[in-house]
Amino acid sequence: MLLHLIVESVGPGITEFNEGDHVLTVFIGECKTCRQCKSDKSNTCEVLGLERRGVMHSDQQTRFSIKGKPVYHYCAVSSFSEYTVVHSGCAVKVSSIAPLEKICLLSCGLSAGLGAAWNVADISKGSTVVIFGLGTVGLSVAQGAKVRGASRIIGVDTNPEKCEKAKAFGVTEFLNPNDNNEPVQQVIKRITDGGADYSFECIGDTGMITTALQSCCDGWGLAVTLGVPKLKPEVAAHYGLFLSGRTLKGSLFGGWKPKTDLPSLVNRYLKKEFMVDEFITHNLLFEDINQAFNLMKEGKCLRSVIHMPK
Amino acid sequence: MLLHLIVESVGPGITEFNEGDHVLTVFIGECKTCRQCKSDKSNTCEVLGLERRGVMHSDQQTRFSIKGKPVYHYCAVSSFSEYTVVHSGCAVKVSSIAPLEKICLLSCGLSAGLGAAWNVADISKGSTVVIFGLGTVGLSVAQGAKVRGASRIIGVDTNPEKCEKAKAFGVTEFLNPNDNNEPVQQVIKRITDGGADYSFECIGDTGMITTALQSCCDGWGLAVTLGVPKLKPEVAAHYGLFLSGRTLKGSLFGGWKPKTDLPSLVNRYLKKEFMVDEFITHNLLFEDINQAFNLMKEGKCLRSVIHMPK
Repeated sequence: MLLHLIVESVGPGITEFNEGDHVLTVFIGECKTCRQCKSDKSNTCEVLGLERRGVMHSDQQTRFSIKGKPVYHYCAVSSFSEYTVVHSGCAVKVSSIAPLEKICLLSCGLSAGLGAAWNVADISKGSTVVIFGLGTVGLSVAQGAKVRGASRIIGVDTNPEKCEKAKAFGVTEFLNPNDNNEPVQQVIKRITDGGADYSFECIGDTGMITTALQSCCDGWGLAVTLGVPKLKPEVAAHYGLFLSGRTLKGSLFGGWKPKTDLPSLVNRYLKKEFMVDEFITHNLLFEDINQAFNLMKEGKCLRSVIHMPK
Repeated sequence: MLLHLIVESVGPGITEFNEGDHVLTVFIGECKTCRQCKSDKSNTCEVLGLERRGVMHSDQQTRFSIKGKPVYHYCAVSSFSEYTVVHSGCAVKVSSIAPLEKICLLSCGLSAGLGAAWNVADISKGSTVVIFGLGTVGLSVAQGAKVRGASRIIGVDTNPEKCEKAKAFGVTEFLNPNDNNEPVQQVIKRITDGGADYSFECIGDTGMITTALQSCCDGWGLAVTLGVPKLKPEVAAHYGLFLSGRTLKGSLFGGWKPKTDLPSLVNRYLKKEFMVDEFITHNLLFEDINQAFNLMKEGKCLRSVIHMPK
């Protein structure tokens, strides 16, 4: 449920956008001048990163109000709105021939998964991958792993309906932790002769980050965490998991620098290098947005695209 | 206090050693046939790794006994002994012109530190490095960082005597956490404008692993843990440290494959590419071994070499 936009007007001093441009808006921006933006190893902009609250960077004010009271922006993009105001660093001009109602998925979860597989883990051909959580993020990791030529892509989810869906995105084996009497990390270590090369936590559960670490192998096992945990914020793991050669790495928006990288990602979609449309299970009108939230909570959708009234 | 050896005799079927060869013995071996040994990304041999107990791999028996009762081997090398029996996979033939009473340090701590800097972290020129714990391992990381051209090498230790010693090994700034009213990770973030590029935990304290993670920067900060914690075995860290771009990685024996890599490391020492002799602060006779342990506990030595009776 992310916003795709057509530029309606441009603020003073901004020359990179024109009225009518097609843009994607992103929850982490790219100022292109801070230490993080200047490094090719980072996408965590210091100016337009996660620590901004719901106000514009320039004047610390909101651009929404109701009866004189400020309404705070949501995640820099304020996507549930017909019109919004975003910092130019949080808008990315993309090809005008790409269908906005599809590529809006590249503003978040789908890119997060592809980038975790390609940029952060840099999955190599023939490797074994395990993915915890088969929502859009996890299935995008699967798709990224498939593109890289991973030979085994093990998907883990407690929702049995994910099994069939997941195969379309590259998952070669499905594990439901509830189907086994032994802990899922033990099952994985057994069927992979010691653990996977790469594991991905795509749930938002710190306990599962530990499980992901335990599920990858000695020596070079890499666990990547993508989720934002809702409950316990502390990751805990036995030091021996690291000493025997494992690495734990975080992935925010798949390591993509939004303004630098999204335009070419959109072009790669146009060349059909990866699937996007297949993640859209529902198209709903804005007035039915609560139905979209319910579908998400019940695990019955991948992505619902919300269409604004014309 | 590690053992250097001259081969006294060779078991049946072993052709790679001859009587009189100079060898280093190592606590993790290299079988050269397991999944880990076959990968160029690992040094955690499955056959001769950390999980062996104090017996020989071949027959699960000890080679030491006293009055008919077995005496277990220590860390595969049983270094506090005039004669020992080691698996051929735990012995490394090295140049006979290298002084054994010096290069014995390459069997463990010194290599662990150099390898953490070179193999595991792969420190780049001009970077900022912070090292927690300035014993031989930490100072070897410092030396490794200096060789790589790190521009700032910040050493952290609660022992004020380490300050001067550390400079000889490359440390450019010394921090004693007890000298500051604010947590050391805050001091580091302040003086490095957001955190170091690399941090190394060389103490064996899981709390300090968290501190190391907090001391490196967003985006690409890499924390490497080398220590073996004596107390709390669980590493705990807020998930946000990972999501904002940090990585936590373990380093066992600096990532060196002992049989593959140690001979060339000895040759690099002979070419004076790095210091070894300078870590030896004491030479003691075997009968004074308890003095060596006391010096270590009191933080008054770097390495004591124990000399056996002739």
